[in-house]
Amino acid sequence: MITIGLLGLGRMGLHIAVRLHDAGHRVIGYDPSAQACASAAEHGIVIATSVHDLAKQARIIWLMVPAGKLIDDVLAELLPLMHKDDIIIDGGNSLYLDSIRRYNDCAAHGIAFIDCGTSGGLAGLTNGYSLMIGGDKQAVAHVQEAFDAIGAPNGVEHVGPAGAGHYVKMVHNGIEYAMLQAYGEGFDLLKHGHYPDLDLKQVASVWQHGSVIRSWIVELCRDVFAKDQELTSVSGAIGENATGKWTSEEAQRRNIPVKLIDESLAIRAWSRTTGGNYGTKVVALLRQAFGGHNLGGK
Amino acid sequence: MITIGLLGLGRMGLHIAVRLHDAGHRVIGYDPSAQACASAAEHGIVIATSVHDLAKQARIIWLMVPAGKLIDDVLAELLPLMHKDDIIIDGGNSLYLDSIRRYNDCAAHGIAFIDCGTSGGLAGLTNGYSLMIGGDKQAVAHVQEAFDAIGAPNGVEHVGPAGAGHYVKMVHNGIEYAMLQAYGEGFDLLKHGHYPDLDLKQVASVWQHGSVIRSWIVELCRDVFAKDQELTSVSGAIGENATGKWTSEEAQRRNIPVKLIDESLAIRAWSRTTGGNYGTKVVALLRQAFGGHNLGGK
Repeated sequence: MITIGLLGLGRMGLHIAVRLHDAGHRVIGYDPSAQACASAAEHGIVIATSVHDLAKQARIIWLMVPAGKLIDDVLAELLPLMHKDDIIIDGGNSLYLDSIRRYNDCAAHGIAFIDCGTSGGLAGLTNGYSLMIGGDKQAVAHVQEAFDAIGAPNGVEHVGPAGAGHYVKMVHNGIEYAMLQAYGEGFDLLKHGHYPDLDLKQVASVWQHGSVIRSWIVELCRDVFAKDQELTSVSGAIGENATGKWTSEEAQRRNIPVKLIDESLAIRAWSRTTGGNYGTKVVALLRQAFGGHNLGGK
Repeated sequence: MITIGLLGLGRMGLHIAVRLHDAGHRVIGYDPSAQACASAAEHGIVIATSVHDLAKQARIIWLMVPAGKLIDDVLAELLPLMHKDDIIIDGGNSLYLDSIRRYNDCAAHGIAFIDCGTSGGLAGLTNGYSLMIGGDKQAVAHVQEAFDAIGAPNGVEHVGPAGAGHYVKMVHNGIEYAMLQAYGEGFDLLKHGHYPDLDLKQVASVWQHGSVIRSWIVELCRDVFAKDQELTSVSGAIGENATGKWTSEEAQRRNIPVKLIDESLAIRAWSRTTGGNYGTKVVALLRQAFGGHNLGGK
């Protein structure tokens, strides 16, 4: 049993707190939103009164905060409050270069920083997540119990040094963009091709059982098409976080062609200015299905 | 228990014959290659002496013959030998327009023609296949037992009228091309990016457990990287059958953008003239892993 602070009790943060709590760990949560705190308290999570209070009670703190400047702000507040050999984990979608920098900043305070790419979406609450972990061996070993509680069976891997976890997650997301688009294109052609009366739910279902392209995404396609196959009133604008763009930029920096990932990004941008097409509607609905992402390209 | 003729005892034909046989059906096989017949006989398959002999013994015949003119040749030989209400199933990767034409040709002889897209690769022998079936309801119902023996659990679906099975399989393959390429690009970036020491087997494994991009293909990635991650002596030339190109052409005819599928095809063509790159090596190895396809772009 370990004691862990959970900073950020949005959807993902809450789900991770609940998995830790249900595994018997002592979880202390904090979120600037009183509503988020109240919702976490209902799940049995102890709520801290402030970041200061959280840092007083927990020697390991898991950040589930939107990537970017917010993480730096939180770290600036946290670092003076924490002690030597404390551990901070960033479980969000940060740029790996930022994670390396933060690792060094923390190290200067004698604090270990771990970057953890977290994939699994809403279903992660019950299935557990795929955790791609970067950082020092010793620090990772110290938090292993927490990772095991959060991760899916066999879904916890320490992949490399500082930044490596977020790097692997970034590439994961790039692949995800292209996979979603591939299914979107296929279903568009099924819907508007020679056999417009095909039952796309049935097709997704048969593909899920025994085919070469079976995947969790095809499983979600079946759920999406079980509700609606016309998608007349659905927006085809696909939103995105920064990870796809970062994948594309990183590949360009290193002269590695990732044409499908690039093209998926271009199609998302196009979808947001035009409203997209049937295929991008499918992608937008899949993003909603796995991650609870908003429709309408936001 | 039904009696079924299996014409074509290559790798896929043999595996399907074995699944039927093991499920207790009476399978009579034939292949122009004596070696293929001998191999099937070892699995307990009764071997016919000729197409003529096969047609005498079986009122249901499953064709597992390479797509194209060969199917027409076989049908030209078979049709005069068969009787009213007999059933012919094409389990290969035929163009749906050909399947519609053959359905009509067979119908003119009072014979039912069923098109069946069959996905699952080498693992289909043990897992069962994903079967996408097109044709008349009555004929499909008549062969249901055979489909159930060949298919994976919940992997048997009658998706529509003549040609629909092969149409759905064609689109399946188009999606497959793009999915394979997406993973190839991702692993290329992992191998040649900021963390060249990543263990790609470990990455494929963590992605297989809980992540949004988990799939059978990621499972195969793990197997591929368990053997070799440098891929120095592997050809990056990717072969293909016609289904990808057909998907692209069909989409063009119907003005449906399938940019990722188009791009995957263009990359395969490029890989065959240049030898490709690390990403296309991964794709070629995955094709070998799931389908036993040759390396070297053939």
